[in-house]
Amino acid sequence: MNTKSIAYILGWILNIEALFMLLPVATAVVYGEAEGLAFVITMALCALCGFLLAGKKPKNPSFYVREGFVATALGWIVMSVFGCIPFMLTGEIPHFIDALFETVSGFTTTGASILTDVETMSRCSMLWRCFTHWIGGMGVLVFLLAVLPMVGGTNMHLMKAESPGPSVGKLVPKVRYTARILYLLYVALTVLQFLLLLLGRMDPFEALCTAFGTAGTGGFGVKNTSMGGYSPYLQWVVTVFMVVFGVNFNVYFLLIMRRFRQASRCEEMRWYLAIIASATALIFVNAYDGMLSVEHNLRNAAFQVASIITTTGFANTNFDLWPGFSKLILVLLMFIGACAGSTGGGLKVSRFVIAAKGLGRSLASFLHPRAVCKIKFEEKDVEEETLRAINGYFIAALFIVSASVLIVSLDDMDLVSTFTAVAATFNNIGPGLGQVGPTANFSAFSALSKAVMIFDMLAGRLEIFPLLMLLYPPLWRETAHERARRKRRREQSKTH
Amino acid sequence: MNTKSIAYILGWILNIEALFMLLPVATAVVYGEAEGLAFVITMALCALCGFLLAGKKPKNPSFYVREGFVATALGWIVMSVFGCIPFMLTGEIPHFIDALFETVSGFTTTGASILTDVETMSRCSMLWRCFTHWIGGMGVLVFLLAVLPMVGGTNMHLMKAESPGPSVGKLVPKVRYTARILYLLYVALTVLQFLLLLLGRMDPFEALCTAFGTAGTGGFGVKNTSMGGYSPYLQWVVTVFMVVFGVNFNVYFLLIMRRFRQASRCEEMRWYLAIIASATALIFVNAYDGMLSVEHNLRNAAFQVASIITTTGFANTNFDLWPGFSKLILVLLMFIGACAGSTGGGLKVSRFVIAAKGLGRSLASFLHPRAVCKIKFEEKDVEEETLRAINGYFIAALFIVSASVLIVSLDDMDLVSTFTAVAATFNNIGPGLGQVGPTANFSAFSALSKAVMIFDMLAGRLEIFPLLMLLYPPLWRETAHERARRKRRREQSKTH
Repeated sequence: MNTKSIAYILGWILNIEALFMLLPVATAVVYGEAEGLAFVITMALCALCGFLLAGKKPKNPSFYVREGFVATALGWIVMSVFGCIPFMLTGEIPHFIDALFETVSGFTTTGASILTDVETMSRCSMLWRCFTHWIGGMGVLVFLLAVLPMVGGTNMHLMKAESPGPSVGKLVPKVRYTARILYLLYVALTVLQFLLLLLGRMDPFEALCTAFGTAGTGGFGVKNTSMGGYSPYLQWVVTVFMVVFGVNFNVYFLLIMRRFRQASRCEEMRWYLAIIASATALIFVNAYDGMLSVEHNLRNAAFQVASIITTTGFANTNFDLWPGFSKLILVLLMFIGACAGSTGGGLKVSRFVIAAKGLGRSLASFLHPRAVCKIKFEEKDVEEETLRAINGYFIAALFIVSASVLIVSLDDMDLVSTFTAVAATFNNIGPGLGQVGPTANFSAFSALSKAVMIFDMLAGRLEIFPLLMLLYPPLWRETAHERARRKRRREQSKTH
Repeated sequence: MNTKSIAYILGWILNIEALFMLLPVATAVVYGEAEGLAFVITMALCALCGFLLAGKKPKNPSFYVREGFVATALGWIVMSVFGCIPFMLTGEIPHFIDALFETVSGFTTTGASILTDVETMSRCSMLWRCFTHWIGGMGVLVFLLAVLPMVGGTNMHLMKAESPGPSVGKLVPKVRYTARILYLLYVALTVLQFLLLLLGRMDPFEALCTAFGTAGTGGFGVKNTSMGGYSPYLQWVVTVFMVVFGVNFNVYFLLIMRRFRQASRCEEMRWYLAIIASATALIFVNAYDGMLSVEHNLRNAAFQVASIITTTGFANTNFDLWPGFSKLILVLLMFIGACAGSTGGGLKVSRFVIAAKGLGRSLASFLHPRAVCKIKFEEKDVEEETLRAINGYFIAALFIVSASVLIVSLDDMDLVSTFTAVAATFNNIGPGLGQVGPTANFSAFSALSKAVMIFDMLAGRLEIFPLLMLLYPPLWRETAHERARRKRRREQSKTH
């Protein structure tokens, strides 16, 4: 294991985090809040640790998948551990496990909260909370693509560990260039939403927090009622932008390149929009409330469908009171998730579409055992390797969700709350049903359950394997290659 | 499609079913019940249709996978449709959908009932109900292995469609011989259990019904309290035999062949027993009831674990009142199911073990991308094809369960009842939790939900694909081979 390179990367992550903390510090200055001091202290701590770790550029350039996985997983963990310090220092979230839960929930763009009353928080903490979504949304590692090459190793491994689905990172051959384009798109869309929210007369602070929460498909709000108190216009803006941030960013890239026809033919986006439209229609009919206007019913259905499928997790109504059929549609959407290559979580639309096509092919191969059938996705043949990886991904998700539900059930809540709490954290959504519904929060769980859900949030965000790897003992053993290298070096030092 | 051969097989199935109905008729004679007439009428109907369909041996010997799938699926459907007629004729289950649900539940060895009061039923109907488990348990098609060769085609396709898991049917090269051995084992074990139940002073009629229900891993009882009213001895006998009927029958075959060491090394059996032991221990601790004796607590835990993992579905206590953790263990056991090559349902222990090993291999391949790692199961390398089929099976199960839950949720029961109703029918268990718990039944569902669950029971029992195939349009199209054959024949008739 090339520990020096990993330490170097972690150092840079901490430096960047220190930089990001300027924003809550500035907020504290603007609003004259004493809580800003907590951020100043944490900034200093981040910068110090960052300096110590990233001070010397490592010489050994070998950087393989396992280093990539470890750096990815540890990167998110380190970010979260340092990111939760201000909450503890200000005393707003006194216990470590709660503060860590909240921060992991932020960086993984989950939006599940242990806070019973958000509105009593200081503005700088509120902003930091929402800002973690924005940072996490696009992935700390997309930022790192500008930093990593300094290590000298190829950074495709990291991209592989981080990439939210089967087809990201193939926009342009040069990863750094791609990263920059994605980054700009992300900023531009966030600014656009911010402006549209201001147009609807939202308070600028709230508009900024909401834009951060939407862009990262996170879902932390600044109001206890989430989005329920805002005007219909503002709710529609948020609905549209949630959908926008759940689309595969390839599409926007193609739009910038003026390849409009190609962009409109993106198969994953078409499925994604079709699922949103049909789920909205079904819920609109099933959960129709005669006391509300048609527009209000449609708005509630569309808002919640967009919020859940993109794994944002904002709420404009208490969907826990909807009929069972509507609630079940939401639970299924939780697992489907957004498009690959978006900021959203879940298992991803493309995985479901390819798995469904694989199922169709199984039927065909029973009829024609000797025929070779290929599955098409995005107008290309799907490789067997991809299909196998996707099926394996489902199995891995199945095992993790089952094990998590079993442990969390020790808290003896009702089964719906237990199951949806795990589903909502693993898929990075936020609220679930029952005791973790949109009007409730995660504070009632035991420390053990919170720890399990912290694992689930990270596993879901990092596409399972980087995190599972950390628990896989052979990862930490020396490889034959490393052993040979060490031997060679020892011999060299002997001859000198 | 070789419809004539399929019709011929269906005809024989009906003839056999007519034969089986002699048992309820005999029961009616012994107890002097007028309801016996219903069985006489149905017998005559079965025999008539059977005679018409199986009267002439078809000439065309071509019998491929698709014919196998269609014959398997239609075989179970035809059995069930004719098997439910007596219930309607006696008026004990007046509605067709209910009677069909009950009979499909019998033949698929599910044991889910729509009856609110079993004890008011006539003895002959009770017996027929439990006997359908026994018939279904080993599979109508194992019986048919003696009949099928008359068609002239190879019957391995049918075996493939029917085989409950990855490794059945490889006991002895000759399938007919294997079938006969399995058949004898099945009868011998049933008789043994019957005798042991008699030893415990169970009423002979009840002992026969209980033995039928256990052997088929079905779960229909003759008491409203299922097994709760019987003595500890009787409950322990049933527990042991449930476990016995859930073991891979390969093991018993090896025992008969005096290959004891090989039998004891069966990996699937070891996992199966390990899961039973650990689940029992966990539930014993978690659901411990201080009001009951230690033996009683252990008995309840062991009985329910055995009942659910083997997918039998008997109950000796109302496990719906257990804590959430214990209930979740049961829900997980529902999906794990028994060993492949047993009479049990569920996804099968071997599939889970192989899938878990596949997951481990994925982690290893990230570390050593170029190394070729093989998975071992039962001391043999698992072929890639098998692993792919197993992963595909999980995906198919996932899609079917999701779609079913969604449709059943239209009845707007609570989500736990809805989900476990589907889980209990798809995995051929019987009772679920909540409104379909061990003290409740399936009568409250709408006709649509019942139809969906009938589909699920059949899909679960027939390993999904034969039933999915029926809904797959290309199945019904003429193949290139058939078109060529038809053309050739037409030309031949022209030249003559």
